[in-house]
Amino acid sequence: VSGNCYKVRLLLAHLGYDYDRVEVDVVDRRNREQVLGELNPARRIPTLVLDGGRPLAESGAILCYLANGTPWLPTDPFVRAQVLQWMFFEQSSHAPFIGVARYWLTIAPEAPNPDALAAKQARGRGALHAMDRHLEERPFLVGERPTIADLALYAYTHVAAEGGFNLGQYPAVVSWLERVASEPGHVRIAA
Amino acid sequence: VSGNCYKVRLLLAHLGYDYDRVEVDVVDRRNREQVLGELNPARRIPTLVLDGGRPLAESGAILCYLANGTPWLPTDPFVRAQVLQWMFFEQSSHAPFIGVARYWLTIAPEAPNPDALAAKQARGRGALHAMDRHLEERPFLVGERPTIADLALYAYTHVAAEGGFNLGQYPAVVSWLERVASEPGHVRIAA
Repeated sequence: VSGNCYKVRLLLAHLGYDYDRVEVDVVDRRNREQVLGELNPARRIPTLVLDGGRPLAESGAILCYLANGTPWLPTDPFVRAQVLQWMFFEQSSHAPFIGVARYWLTIAPEAPNPDALAAKQARGRGALHAMDRHLEERPFLVGERPTIADLALYAYTHVAAEGGFNLGQYPAVVSWLERVASEPGHVRIAA
Repeated sequence: VSGNCYKVRLLLAHLGYDYDRVEVDVVDRRNREQVLGELNPARRIPTLVLDGGRPLAESGAILCYLANGTPWLPTDPFVRAQVLQWMFFEQSSHAPFIGVARYWLTIAPEAPNPDALAAKQARGRGALHAMDRHLEERPFLVGERPTIADLALYAYTHVAAEGGFNLGQYPAVVSWLERVASEPGHVRIAA
């Protein structure tokens, strides 16, 4: 269910890497210390453990590490910074609103506070508007082919309806979602 | 007042770069469209405009771009990913709680909702605990010298008291703050 984990699985599928998967509960977090205590100071998912045992956390950092040297992360320093711009935007201005609204409405065991939900949704609509304006004139977030910025933003955007968002109001986003999902190697969030 | 802007000014000071500064209000955002409309789809600060006119947004992306090729961003791909891990942690698990609690208590014109503030502070304490555990055995967040991960985390951590946090509970964080602030070239947030 986690969009942050899905981003990483999506890139791993595109790159054709094998990996083992350890699932943790996103509601009952009592075993986080046991599972992640030595691997991630923040005890968050996803946490990647490389062959050899080195751990790496934060979906954005994992995507950058895995994509390094592949077409998913351009080498030009400014273009690379533009990719990071969208990935930091996703973590600061997109997932905290769209991902959290989805969590409250679809995953959390208790019903959300209506005012808090409305505030999350208002800011989430702002993030979708920002993406829509940007994508009106571009096929992908940065450049002419998909990058890890597109995978990072795809994860919570494509399930935004589960957070009460009407994606029909963002036609450039809808077209972009279709382009990202039609890339060879794409896998679904439930895969 | 913005910790996100401060991070960038801190690195610019360390690198000795000249720059022009355009200030915007962090409470009254009515002129954001006019000032940032063409430069940043998200209309957020900081937004950097390079000589030549290319804009770059999100403090984390700006730090990576400016630090590229300097000791502030290591070149080893895994170490670089560890730096990014802490920078994404800052944006996903630290600034949204510590920075927002500080904004509500010190900058915003209206008093915060007590329950909402308490929730932000609880998660902010979690972020400070994660840093403290990590810094107990290390001089800096990644490696033996400061990187942009330290500058990124320094910004909102060193003013956490303004958000109601008691930094005395995190002795490794306090020692680390002193090390970061004692680097040659350091400037204060009010500079």
